[in-house]
Amino acid sequence: MNKKVLVTGCAGFIGSNLVDELLLRNYKVLGIDNFSTGRIEFITNALKNDKFQFHKKDLLIDETSHLFKEVEVVFHLSANADVRNGINQTYKDIQQNTIVTHKVLENMRTNGCSEIVFSSTGSIYGDSRQFPTPEDTNFPIQTSLYGASKLACEGIIQAYCEGFKFKSWIFRFVSILGERYTHGHLYDFYKQLLENPKQLTILGNGKQQKSYLYVKDCINAIMMALDKSADQINIYNLGTDEFSEVNNSIRLIKDFLGIKPILNYTGGIKGWIGDNPKIYLDTKKIKELGWKPQLNINESINKTLNYFHSNKWLFKKHE
Amino acid sequence: MNKKVLVTGCAGFIGSNLVDELLLRNYKVLGIDNFSTGRIEFITNALKNDKFQFHKKDLLIDETSHLFKEVEVVFHLSANADVRNGINQTYKDIQQNTIVTHKVLENMRTNGCSEIVFSSTGSIYGDSRQFPTPEDTNFPIQTSLYGASKLACEGIIQAYCEGFKFKSWIFRFVSILGERYTHGHLYDFYKQLLENPKQLTILGNGKQQKSYLYVKDCINAIMMALDKSADQINIYNLGTDEFSEVNNSIRLIKDFLGIKPILNYTGGIKGWIGDNPKIYLDTKKIKELGWKPQLNINESINKTLNYFHSNKWLFKKHE
Repeated sequence: MNKKVLVTGCAGFIGSNLVDELLLRNYKVLGIDNFSTGRIEFITNALKNDKFQFHKKDLLIDETSHLFKEVEVVFHLSANADVRNGINQTYKDIQQNTIVTHKVLENMRTNGCSEIVFSSTGSIYGDSRQFPTPEDTNFPIQTSLYGASKLACEGIIQAYCEGFKFKSWIFRFVSILGERYTHGHLYDFYKQLLENPKQLTILGNGKQQKSYLYVKDCINAIMMALDKSADQINIYNLGTDEFSEVNNSIRLIKDFLGIKPILNYTGGIKGWIGDNPKIYLDTKKIKELGWKPQLNINESINKTLNYFHSNKWLFKKHE
Repeated sequence: MNKKVLVTGCAGFIGSNLVDELLLRNYKVLGIDNFSTGRIEFITNALKNDKFQFHKKDLLIDETSHLFKEVEVVFHLSANADVRNGINQTYKDIQQNTIVTHKVLENMRTNGCSEIVFSSTGSIYGDSRQFPTPEDTNFPIQTSLYGASKLACEGIIQAYCEGFKFKSWIFRFVSILGERYTHGHLYDFYKQLLENPKQLTILGNGKQQKSYLYVKDCINAIMMALDKSADQINIYNLGTDEFSEVNNSIRLIKDFLGIKPILNYTGGIKGWIGDNPKIYLDTKKIKELGWKPQLNINESINKTLNYFHSNKWLFKKHE
């Protein structure tokens, strides 16, 4: 019999790619999404598959405990991923990330499900002093409510591992790129240039150094860690062994579109309040399992730009 | 004009001692407590002082924003401090610690108050690999919902510092002892022996190595850090440069009471699920400000036992 798994945020960027992979691997997949940022278009194929069962639910508000019955692994990917807006929406990260994660854990505990895969973030390292940043770097200081809310999730998950013998796989992602990417600097830049190819506004000085990973490499890493690492708490950085300036992304977009917009920098080393101007994670631990990314950063960016080019509907207002 | 400060958990063990010190220093003190573990007896003297204003409120449920008006510093000490019970009450730590702290921060932000003193815990280091444990030790793994909930508070406070230019003083306490101590192993042992001096049950093997600090030393450290350290985020371990076995506490209690009970150990290196069998914090950072504790661990234990002896009412059922 096929394993039954549950994916929260199943219609999101990473969630929907994960659902496709899980269905390929013959899992029975129960997906939950509230379409706050997820898109029905991303699960069109999955919905045709008998092994996929979808529930439109809001994990914060709706009663969802019954959906966790007989589930063996929960892939908890639903989140507010809008890092920049924490200072305007001071409840959202705590509610959508921390409180929802706690609810998911309670749903699991009360239904006897004890294996959780969790999408955390490199943002929890704050303004790290160590590059590349390993998983056991110095106790970090948070710079955003997003990072703080994910740190809280990690801690609560770990407490469930100790208290209730859960097993967890916690992945600290760099920015993920690729098919169905709909949130982040590349999306913002592309959208701006679709509307006006002559001007581009860049938050900060464009010299922020960030790291990126192709979504399919990300999902392969998750599946490999799940197969190969069997500690009670498994924490992995996921990224590439590179970082790239925001200005590099701009160069690639300009080349891709064949345009030369005027670049307006808002200035400062941080793109926004709470931004971490350098993110570069040490990925030795996941690579020791035999994983390596197939695409480098520039290839991931170009893959994403090609996807945008074929999917201009993404830039229409999401309803 | 005297500075107006607010103390949450003002009728608790540490909170009430802090209130007394703040009043001595001529602050105007607004205190909030819901008497969940706080005791009216602990603020009897404070209530006679014109500069003390008390409000019985539940920070989780009641509307308290108006109480933060014109407050300059918030000492946020209210918490669920019952580490052991997280596995039975899986919502309590998240609600009473994490969510309440977030509410306190929002109350501050919306009232223009931006200085917070926060009582965190050495428990957030989990099962540390480094002793004595410095503030910037390796990224810890949580072992209890209590620790996880306090870690979450720290992260959220730090995010408010970055996002809203708050200033914070975060203190990671060892176990605090002294007058008005009403929660922890000494209290439990003394209570057992009052009921039956012939038997004592000890959780674990008695060899847990913990660190303790006298409450007045704790409060002096807080006041000194507040005076002398002016970073945006100030994190300090508070403890003594010692640790002590649980068996040492038992020896001191036996001597104090002049009894020889039969000792029944429940066994195992951990006293309970999620217990950290060794807590020993590096206090170099706070000592560099000129602070040093007046009492060592054995003196703190004896001080506490003397307090128990004169205050047997503490062991009657709290209503």
